Amino acid sequence: MKAAIGVDIGGTDVKLGIVRHGQVLVRRSFPTASISSGPKALEEGIVAAVRSLRGSFRGKVESVGVGVPGLVRVPQGIVQTCANVKGWKNVPLQSRLRRRLGVPVRVDNDVHAMALAEWRYGAGRGVRNLVCVTLGTGVGGGFILNGKLYRSRLGPSAEIGHVAIGETGPACSCGGSACLERYVGNRDLLRILRRKLESGAKSRLPRLAGGRLDRITPEMVDRACEMGDRLAIETWEEAGCKIGLVLSKVVTLLSPDRIVIGGGLSRAGRWLFEPIRKTLRERAMHPLGKIPVVPAKLGMSAGLIGAALLGQEALNE
Amino acid sequence: MKAAIGVDIGGTDVKLGIVRHGQVLVRRSFPTASISSGPKALEEGIVAAVRSLRGSFRGKVESVGVGVPGLVRVPQGIVQTCANVKGWKNVPLQSRLRRRLGVPVRVDNDVHAMALAEWRYGAGRGVRNLVCVTLGTGVGGGFILNGKLYRSRLGPSAEIGHVAIGETGPACSCGGSACLERYVGNRDLLRILRRKLESGAKSRLPRLAGGRLDRITPEMVDRACEMGDRLAIETWEEAGCKIGLVLSKVVTLLSPDRIVIGGGLSRAGRWLFEPIRKTLRERAMHPLGKIPVVPAKLGMSAGLIGAALLGQEALNE
Repeated sequence: MKAAIGVDIGGTDVKLGIVRHGQVLVRRSFPTASISSGPKALEEGIVAAVRSLRGSFRGKVESVGVGVPGLVRVPQGIVQTCANVKGWKNVPLQSRLRRRLGVPVRVDNDVHAMALAEWRYGAGRGVRNLVCVTLGTGVGGGFILNGKLYRSRLGPSAEIGHVAIGETGPACSCGGSACLERYVGNRDLLRILRRKLESGAKSRLPRLAGGRLDRITPEMVDRACEMGDRLAIETWEEAGCKIGLVLSKVVTLLSPDRIVIGGGLSRAGRWLFEPIRKTLRERAMHPLGKIPVVPAKLGMSAGLIGAALLGQEALNE
Repeated sequence: MKAAIGVDIGGTDVKLGIVRHGQVLVRRSFPTASISSGPKALEEGIVAAVRSLRGSFRGKVESVGVGVPGLVRVPQGIVQTCANVKGWKNVPLQSRLRRRLGVPVRVDNDVHAMALAEWRYGAGRGVRNLVCVTLGTGVGGGFILNGKLYRSRLGPSAEIGHVAIGETGPACSCGGSACLERYVGNRDLLRILRRKLESGAKSRLPRLAGGRLDRITPEMVDRACEMGDRLAIETWEEAGCKIGLVLSKVVTLLSPDRIVIGGGLSRAGRWLFEPIRKTLRERAMHPLGKIPVVPAKLGMSAGLIGAALLGQEALNE
């Protein structure tokens, strides 16, 4: 396997790396803010960083893969929407980068890239059917089905964050309502928690946040759990129950060999994973509730490694 | 393509047919009641009928496929449960039939077989990703993903009838609760309707059923709809809303090119399909609500043709 460059467009940084055999050999990054003026700035930023990376590397870079936090039409690699870049609409990023970089390029959704990475080198190794979930500001998903990354002709797929919990619920920007993301996406989760505190719920969280409820972070909730804080524990229990409920639908449909959960919120560990597993056991069709739910292994590198795998995919076609 | 024998185990009859190019050339059937004494009786019944069919056919039969209304572990073809046969538990039907019939045999779930048939010869032709649903006593599903019948290592998959509608709801025999089947499966649908009539709801249905509420059938509900009966129309509207709600989850995850709906209840036509399509448009992630929802085309033959396709699959491996 030759080296590929992975590009992971995140909320804060655009990370790049030269990847070989699942190892990141050289890294670069630049602030996402510098490209927020539009797709053209993003293209320039990526081209400059890829050239600089290649210049610093003795080996041969055979392909480039890009993971985008948004909707991507594959295999053309047309980015329909991108969470952190303004003015984005149906940008043919793949063909543009291909022309300028002179190597095969593959652009896809960032959670699809993460799923590929965890499947090949992380917590999903060795299985045929895998469901990956990321819990962060958004709730995303990626499926490996029949030993292959699953993609649809229409763009979005594996959109676990937009599966409805119930018959009614809050409207969602996706056009639906009662979507999982509206309950356990970072922002909504903390908003629900703040509302409880404002209504007088007792907790150590306000003190941990220096009295500023708007400064509470998921990491503070984790810390409060370790201190035995009831409200903090309940926050993860309620989120885990909602996530487990949606996963019970996913396993009833796809019956994967394993479920891997990553993203910032997954750092809550057992406080979150136990309620997820319990709900899955209670709600999924027998015997699918026993499917293992495990934390992702590659952490912050999953996006980079997965993007590089996307690039290699382009090479093999 | 050579001829294959398809075997479709239904609630009333076990149907068999010699199939070539999606056409049923010769048919046989025997009553399911005759095999209800157990797996051994089923095996004998199938072997006798297959031998009789082969005897009556001049061409060569190269394989046999069997569609079972229950949970089947593939590719071994071990039948874990079967809806119409008593005392069934982990029966290696595929290897037994193979030994006795001397040709490749493939045993799988009957709705998976139906999905294969509709994809190759029916309403799902020409697409890469297809979701099939059957609405009858049970609510089943079958997926074609990446141009291949999707199967899991654990047995059940595409179990659309066991996807939960809401956070709470009636318990289901599958171990979950609030399952779609508990609302729109034939028996539960008619039970909900009877309860409304017993509570005084006005309708022509009691008269159509000769005053016997327990004799109301889905066909009578269709007829009452044509007469403009409000309760009958409402029955399909409510069922369509529930089905559409579950399909909105399915498309958010799989974003298929098309959805095909078959089975007895699907004969309700537009009375059922319009509420399904409306709910899907309202509840699915944009733009997935526009995915076409179409009726199955092969009717009662889908099971037979699909089972024969299973047999051919065994041949190609």
